Amino acid sequence: MSIFSFQSVGCCSKTLARAGVFFTPHGVVETPRFMPVGTLANVKTLTPSQLKDTGAQMVLANTYHLHLQPGEAIVSGGGGLHKFMGWDGPMLTDSGGFQVFSLSEMRKITDDGVTFRSPHDGQIINLTPERSIEIQNTLGADVIMAFDECPPYPASREEVEAATERTYRWLKRCIVAHQRSDQALFAIVQGGVYLDLRSEAAIALSQLDLPGYAIGGVSVGEPPELMAKIVQATAPLLPREKPRYLMGVGTYREMAIAIASGIDLFDCVIPTRWARHGTAIVQGERWNLKNAKFREDFTPLDETCSCYTCKNFTRAYLSHLIRAQEILAYTLLSIHNITELISFTQKIREAILSDRFATDFAHWLR
Amino acid sequence: MSIFSFQSVGCCSKTLARAGVFFTPHGVVETPRFMPVGTLANVKTLTPSQLKDTGAQMVLANTYHLHLQPGEAIVSGGGGLHKFMGWDGPMLTDSGGFQVFSLSEMRKITDDGVTFRSPHDGQIINLTPERSIEIQNTLGADVIMAFDECPPYPASREEVEAATERTYRWLKRCIVAHQRSDQALFAIVQGGVYLDLRSEAAIALSQLDLPGYAIGGVSVGEPPELMAKIVQATAPLLPREKPRYLMGVGTYREMAIAIASGIDLFDCVIPTRWARHGTAIVQGERWNLKNAKFREDFTPLDETCSCYTCKNFTRAYLSHLIRAQEILAYTLLSIHNITELISFTQKIREAILSDRFATDFAHWLR
Repeated sequence: MSIFSFQSVGCCSKTLARAGVFFTPHGVVETPRFMPVGTLANVKTLTPSQLKDTGAQMVLANTYHLHLQPGEAIVSGGGGLHKFMGWDGPMLTDSGGFQVFSLSEMRKITDDGVTFRSPHDGQIINLTPERSIEIQNTLGADVIMAFDECPPYPASREEVEAATERTYRWLKRCIVAHQRSDQALFAIVQGGVYLDLRSEAAIALSQLDLPGYAIGGVSVGEPPELMAKIVQATAPLLPREKPRYLMGVGTYREMAIAIASGIDLFDCVIPTRWARHGTAIVQGERWNLKNAKFREDFTPLDETCSCYTCKNFTRAYLSHLIRAQEILAYTLLSIHNITELISFTQKIREAILSDRFATDFAHWLR
Repeated sequence: MSIFSFQSVGCCSKTLARAGVFFTPHGVVETPRFMPVGTLANVKTLTPSQLKDTGAQMVLANTYHLHLQPGEAIVSGGGGLHKFMGWDGPMLTDSGGFQVFSLSEMRKITDDGVTFRSPHDGQIINLTPERSIEIQNTLGADVIMAFDECPPYPASREEVEAATERTYRWLKRCIVAHQRSDQALFAIVQGGVYLDLRSEAAIALSQLDLPGYAIGGVSVGEPPELMAKIVQATAPLLPREKPRYLMGVGTYREMAIAIASGIDLFDCVIPTRWARHGTAIVQGERWNLKNAKFREDFTPLDETCSCYTCKNFTRAYLSHLIRAQEILAYTLLSIHNITELISFTQKIREAILSDRFATDFAHWLR
């Protein structure tokens, strides 16, 4: 039996939502759950200790960014990703696929892989399915992702079809290249906004019996209704007994809708990015703390929130720190924003377990 | 009996060094001790919880900066400085004197006070001894400082003499203006590099029987040998039964030498400022972590240090974060640098208590 397993511990009677436990070598992930993003081997502005206090269980890091700096050899020299960054819980690395397609310049895509110029030092870098897996094996996260081709939005059906087929061929090469039994390789379903391509890919990938499945290529600019349709057409076709991960999504409504289709895991840079812009997430709303009304507001950001920020500081204090451009503002807002998203998924989990999800969260499912 | 008292608990037999306990309404300060600086109602990049873990007991904030933003009314509306910034231990505010003289433009000094243009919004601001005390009474720190005139270095004897005499006249106005018995007003000895002016001022101020005494106007550009002479000529003349505070000093050698002359308290922005430049303080040395040799150095910053940073991360990881310009680097280095300075004064305290100071710290006293 694999050291990785997913166990459903409760189902919603009105939707496809489920509560589960995902077992990994570094601990369990209770799903549904939001996963904070630690691009460069740290979740921006937070220590691992602060991160743990947000309720974070699984944390992401980025293969593309870590390959460019400091390089996987240094991470490995430091004992692997967990030890290097001081996070002893479950971790996941993405494959670099999304970043290569969205961030790098002068890229050339062939069936072999992708060649691009490092924005870091101008060096030519070649990333293939084999190389991505090799880097991820070296980094050492619990979950690693298949190297995929993520088509842009909008893109023609022909382009998306070609990318989806290539992603499938690349997945098979990833499976062959993958070397470590203490890491679980997740497949990524592409298919753009073409629901039939999504369904076909989901069915084909499911037959490869991987320890987990992701839906990629959403939240790339398509309208929210379309994203919901993609998830609804794809998630239910993925194996029930495996964790399902919707990549790059982290807003209340979109997470609730995806959970109702059977999604278990999410990630998004929004909570930390917004924090660095002085924006707080409060009950799913977006608040700009530079707004004058917060200057003399001596209440906590969110009275229902139990994070360190809400327990110890007022909106007026946060507003002051932001106006004074104090770095501590970004830390305190990141703590709150991440806690808020994790807590939202945690509350959904509890609602699923008592079969109140469809009613208690109806507001977010409309 | 005052709620403020200073008790000597041990003396060095070979120097004037003493270990003491300073009692304040928000707890005790074990001296000698380094105090971190929280200019704008936060010690840059650190939460109060992280700050407490560095061993910090008394923390500073700046009247000048807080008056400009967010304004003392907002701090007071938030329950006073302690509650506003979430620090429940002893606090001290400086009077704004030093900042008015070193930071503001277009200032005009008269016997009444100082008029300057706010660098914040261009407004004309008038700061007098009465106004400074009023602001400090409103902010609510445990210790407040007299409003003084800090002459620049170099300055003529005549200029320094005039500033020292004005500082004395202003101190008497501060004493009259001071309204709160739960705050201790400390006097500041000026006198520049003129040792006789320093001695005279120390003797005159001592007769006013204030709950604490500071030496100001050092570390303003004068050579280190001269600073040592100033402290040696001044500190022993200040009342033995009161805490003595050397303002703006926070390097190993200078703290050790000042402690040997009977100084109890120090503050300095160096540990957090250096942190933001990627510089670590290790055993009193200054290390630039951008140096290539740290890239693959998988040892802690300082093996003898028990701070969160040294217990959890390697030099290679810190070097990576600094190169990637990750904010977390500044937090982790601030934690370490402050811990390092406080720990140095704490070790001196323990050495004084067992009368090993003059021998164990001889290296720093040369």
